[in-house]
Order: sequence, then C-alpha cells, then structure tokens
Amino acid sequence: MAVGDVAVPNTIYPIDGIRLSAIAAGVRYKDRDDLVVIEIAETATSAVVTTKNTFCAAPVRVLREHFAKMAPRYLVTNTGNANAGTGAGGKRRAEEICAALAGKAGVDTSAVLPFSTGVIGEPLNSEAVIKGLDKALDSLGADNWLAAANGIRTTDTIPKLASRKVNIADKSYHITGISKGSGMIRPNMATMLGYVATDANIAADLLQEMLVAINEQSFNRITVDGDTSTNDCCVLIATGAASTEVIDSPEHPHYQLLLTALTDVFVRLAQLIVRDGEGATKFMTVKVTGGQTTQECCDVAYAVAHSPLVKTAFFASDANWGRILAAVGYAGIEDLDTEQVDVYLDDVMICQNGGVAPNYTEEAGKTVMSRSEITIHIDLARGEASDTVYTCDLSYDYVKINADYRS
Amino acid sequence: MAVGDVAVPNTIYPIDGIRLSAIAAGVRYKDRDDLVVIEIAETATSAVVTTKNTFCAAPVRVLREHFAKMAPRYLVTNTGNANAGTGAGGKRRAEEICAALAGKAGVDTSAVLPFSTGVIGEPLNSEAVIKGLDKALDSLGADNWLAAANGIRTTDTIPKLASRKVNIADKSYHITGISKGSGMIRPNMATMLGYVATDANIAADLLQEMLVAINEQSFNRITVDGDTSTNDCCVLIATGAASTEVIDSPEHPHYQLLLTALTDVFVRLAQLIVRDGEGATKFMTVKVTGGQTTQECCDVAYAVAHSPLVKTAFFASDANWGRILAAVGYAGIEDLDTEQVDVYLDDVMICQNGGVAPNYTEEAGKTVMSRSEITIHIDLARGEASDTVYTCDLSYDYVKINADYRS
Repeated sequence: MAVGDVAVPNTIYPIDGIRLSAIAAGVRYKDRDDLVVIEIAETATSAVVTTKNTFCAAPVRVLREHFAKMAPRYLVTNTGNANAGTGAGGKRRAEEICAALAGKAGVDTSAVLPFSTGVIGEPLNSEAVIKGLDKALDSLGADNWLAAANGIRTTDTIPKLASRKVNIADKSYHITGISKGSGMIRPNMATMLGYVATDANIAADLLQEMLVAINEQSFNRITVDGDTSTNDCCVLIATGAASTEVIDSPEHPHYQLLLTALTDVFVRLAQLIVRDGEGATKFMTVKVTGGQTTQECCDVAYAVAHSPLVKTAFFASDANWGRILAAVGYAGIEDLDTEQVDVYLDDVMICQNGGVAPNYTEEAGKTVMSRSEITIHIDLARGEASDTVYTCDLSYDYVKINADYRS
Repeated sequence: MAVGDVAVPNTIYPIDGIRLSAIAAGVRYKDRDDLVVIEIAETATSAVVTTKNTFCAAPVRVLREHFAKMAPRYLVTNTGNANAGTGAGGKRRAEEICAALAGKAGVDTSAVLPFSTGVIGEPLNSEAVIKGLDKALDSLGADNWLAAANGIRTTDTIPKLASRKVNIADKSYHITGISKGSGMIRPNMATMLGYVATDANIAADLLQEMLVAINEQSFNRITVDGDTSTNDCCVLIATGAASTEVIDSPEHPHYQLLLTALTDVFVRLAQLIVRDGEGATKFMTVKVTGGQTTQECCDVAYAVAHSPLVKTAFFASDANWGRILAAVGYAGIEDLDTEQVDVYLDDVMICQNGGVAPNYTEEAGKTVMSRSEITIHIDLARGEASDTVYTCDLSYDYVKINADYRS
C-alpha cells in the first residue's frame, strides 16, 4: 500500500509537441501494456541523466551513444525485462529496436533512445518489442500520459504522474511527467525511470544544466534501500510550443519560476516512488540544517535514511532517538560537535544538544510516530547549509517482497 | 539462532597476569551477571581501539582520556546501560566508577578504563556498579574467562570466546579473548566489545600497531546492518608473563607467527558476532580479489555486504546474481570494466565477464544457496589486491527484533 496522497491529478495537461502510446506487446506477460513510445517534436530540446552504476544496462549504453549524436525524436520503453547483465547480445537487441522504430518513423537510428525495466540477466524478447512498434506508432496521442504512466509500471502499485500549469507574465507553460520505481530494485527489477516534458522553449545546454540540478533535489534525494539500479534514467524535454522566444540563460525573466515549477514536478514524481516503496508504511522526510556544506547535510541525511535500525524503528512507531543520533555520528562528518546537535520529529524536539530534550515525553514521541508522514529534522548547528532526502520505513513486507523467489 | 560453529573451545587457556570476575550488580536486571572486572598485571602493555562514531558514549570519552595518561590496570564493564547520549552527567558517572574502583584497588583513577553496553539515553545506575565493586574484586580469578564472556552479553544469544596456544621456537604463548555484539545496535543496545589477552611480551607501541592492523582484518570487516555503534571498543593486552624478552619490532623472529595467531583469535571473535547477528540464518564471507587497491576491494565487499537486496536474496536462498552485480556497480570504483568481473558462490561460478556464466545452472545455484555458510567471491580482474568482509543475511527476524518496542 502506497503511503499518503498518491493520487493522479484531476487535470493532466497534454504537452504540445509530445505524443505517447502504451500497448501490450507481450514482452514477458500477456495482455498487459509493456511497450511505451514517446514521440518528440523535431523542434524540441531534450536532456538526459542516467544511472551512475558501472554495471549499467545495455539500453543505457546505447542511449548514451545515441544521445551524444543528436536530439531524440522517439523514446521507446519496454517493461518485463531490463536487458541488463546481457552482454554484447543485449546491446545488439537494444540497437535493433531503435533501428526498427527509426525505419518505420523515418528518422535516424540515433534519434531513438531505448529504455528497459524488468528482470535482470535474461535475454530481452526484442522480437516482441519490434512486432509491437506499428501498433504503438499508430496509437500515438497527446492525451495518453496516464496510459504511458501505467505502461511503464512493473511492480509499482500505482501510476506515478504529475502535471501543472504555470503562468509567467503573459505566458502559460505546462509541465507533465511520469515516473516508475518501487524500491531501487524490486526482485530483479531494474528500476527507476522518469520522463518529464514542458512546452517551454529552452536551449538544450541550459536544459541539461537544469535537469542535472533538478535531479539533485529530486530523484537523487530518494532512497528506499540504498541500492542503485542498473537502469535508472530520467529525461526532460522542452518542446518549445508555448513560445518562440528561447530561454537560454538563468538570467531570462522566466527562468527561475520555470525551474521552480519543474523542480516541484520532479520532487513529486520522486516522492511518489518512495511513497510506493517496497513494504513502505511510513513516508519520511529527512531534513538536515545547520551544516557547513550541502554535501555534509546530504551525507547525514542519507546515513539516517539508510540506517536499517532507524527504518525499523519507524516501522514500529518507536521514537528511538538513540538510533538517529548514532546514524548522525557515523555519517563521517569530521569534527562534528555532537553536543550541539538537535533533532525534531515534526514539531516535537526529541534531542537537544546531543542528548534527550528536557521537555521531551514518550507520550509526545508516540503521538508524532503514529503519523504516516513524518519529518526528521536534524540541526547540526555549525553552518548555514541544508539538504533534504526522502525515504520510507523498513517493514516485514520489504523482506517478504525481496525474499520471494523470482517467478 | 546463531549460524554454524559457535561453540566455546574445550580448552580455555588462562593468561598469566590477567584475572577476571563477573557478578550480578543489578544495573538494570536482577540476578544476571552485569558487571565484569578485568585485572591486568602491572608489567603488562595494552592497546585500545574505539568507535569512530562521533556520538561516542561517555565511557569511551573517559577511557580515551585515561588511556592517554597511563597503562590500564583494571577494565570495568557494565551491561544493561550504554551510558550513551547522557551528556555531562554520564561522563561524571563513568569517572565516579573509575575512581571508586581505583580507590579500592590502590591504583590511579586513570589506570581504570570504563566500558558500558546496553540501553542508550538513560542515566546509568552507577551506584549499583560502585556497590558491586567489592564483590567483583573479591571474585577475581584467572579461570573466569567464560564467566566474563557471559557477563558482557546483552542480547547476545551465545557467549563469544576464543583461545589458543602457539608454540614458537622454545616458547609457548597463550591467547584468550572474549567479545560481545549481535548486530551493530540491538534495540537501543550499544554494542560491540572485545577483550583479548596474551602472555607474550610485546612493547606498547608495537602492540598498538598490531591491534590497529588486526582490527582492520577482524572487527572492522564485519557488518550486520551497517550501523556503527556509539560504544564499540576493543582492548589487546600483552602481560609478558611468557617471556622476559620484549618483542619490540616486526623483525623479531616471533612477531609474524604471533601476529597470525592473534589475528586468528580476533577474526574468530569477530565472526562470532556475525554468526550471532540479529535474525541471521546465513553466514556470508564476501571475498573480493583482483582489485587495484585493498580499499577498492573493501568498498566492493561492503557494498555487497550492506545491500538489503543481496541480504534478503540470501535469506531466500535465491542465487540472485543481478543484485550482486548491481551492488558491485554502485560501490564507487572508477573506470571498473564490468565486462571483466567474475562472481562465484563457493565453487560455483555464477557470473563470467559481467554476465551469467555459460555453464551456470539454476540447479547449481540452488545447491550452493541451500548452505548456511557461503562465500561470495568477486574477482575484479584488474589488480593483485584483495579484501574480505563477513556478514549475514537479512531476515524477517531482523525486522522483528529491531521493530520491537523498547520495554
């Protein structure tokens, strides 16, 4: 069961310049959408970030090569098989899919980027994917965002979609995005994908910079189990349909508001992955303030968010501040003065100056821990930097889900 | 249930120059040994390593100060309360215990080192400890190693003890040690302690060097859940009773064999902690070879040993090589050529050149995964360095144990 508000928005804005389709190609299962094609207008700019895992999957290697050559026109995603750990044969199959789609659509093979998610280490049924391409191209439509969000699901329990409109001066911009992922790797499932499009007109270089920066505050700030997938990819597309004027520098008057709106969409999509985390019963925001650098705040936040002891304590609704302090203590921050550290759960101060807060009561701890969404706020009291990471608890179901044999 | 061979050895060698006692002082529970005193001969040298957690407990702060001043004559350990997260009051209580014992024994307060393990964040009942000191001193004996091993247990399910005799030329040396720990922190329990003594005659500086090096191969190479405790301490004592000749350099003819024997004892004590890991059903040795540096081997081994996905797969007896490769891939090794990496489970090659091994069968995988002790061997094929880490699986019981409310 996903935690908290995970609803699909009432209004899903189509993005002029983007068409999508989702069809059942029978890659692994029958009668289940498993092939998603996203068509991008020729005028659009795109930005991509991919997994840092050195064991990256075949499609990730192919898409890096293709993206280096030209702007993408088609994104083709299959579920059911990650095409990871599949060696040279895997790369060839990813290339074949791109070439087939390129031939049908009349674009260069390098204008097609491949994405795969699903089981690791088994040969991808690329024939099924290729056979499905005609139908996928025939079904392209601007209103298929929700179908696409469902089509990229593997064991996700919910579709993940965010959409918003932002008015800046006399312009209206639209942003719509989808993501998938439910744990960094679900039993052999490899994993996080995100596609976001806007009709803003943004220069390619600036768009790439924006994606890297936004990613650092969204998909790079979530953790379910600390396991980084072999297939993680995120794409940001700017079709330019909303304006002829190019936004090509951070000084452009629309830049900041657009960046904020895009960041909101990305953070929502990232949080949806955590809310749908494997076995999650609680959604936790780990906010670290008062650091000397953002990096040390991030290190502390991740130490807490990754600690199995903290995560099991939250599963048990146990306000176990000793485990939080211990995790802060091993985050590797040099010369941290532990006697300055304060910790809050939502509005309840549980630690003051490195020890239990004088006014803290078990009763207050119980009340806050009974919530399904909790902010752990750690104040290091040694600087002005801050950072935030999103995570979930560690439950019996996490073990159950991940201990189930592949089948 | 602890995994595999965890038996106390048939012969426990007393160490000339060491006397121990364990008594029930009523620190937290009644009628349970919770106070252990170890007396060290005046002639002995000692070495100490302590937790790197910046939130270290009050006794750890006190013992660092004391140890900097003089060689210890008494080690005093209480269980039931870690005296961690207890601020200035905690430090005062640790000092009071040392002063009381020093007064009764006629030594300087700084010659007493305090150790605590148990619940974090509650005031230590130092009165009970101090009240118990007379009886503890009266009960000192050379044959109380097993009683001491039991006396330092908190939620450990077994006493942890190793003992051996090593003959070098015309000399017989004896080594006996005890440890405790069962997960880095059991529900609020703070955690690993180790005391090892030998009758060898080793110069203090060399002994400290030896302890640091040995610790890197033993207590610093185990992980249950990756959570580093606030109270970890390890002491190595050389009483010198076996020989008047001082071993004061690695060139001494007895040095290498002694180092090996001491390392064996430490590795055994460290492995016992993993075998008794919270909820453990499997004992895993993660051996990484072919690295360019020991550090990168260690990083890869820890990435695999910490991965919740690898650990749950082992709990499920699932030879899930994709999860192992993914963990290798995110260990942060720059320019790792993943197409060179081989992985073995015991004698079964599961991955060759970064993909599934051609001769691997699910049947062979099932056979090896049915064992309760398994070596994961990862060959990076890019150098001569190697390293080894010991860990256990992640089971329902881990979550259960750590989700139980403190009570």
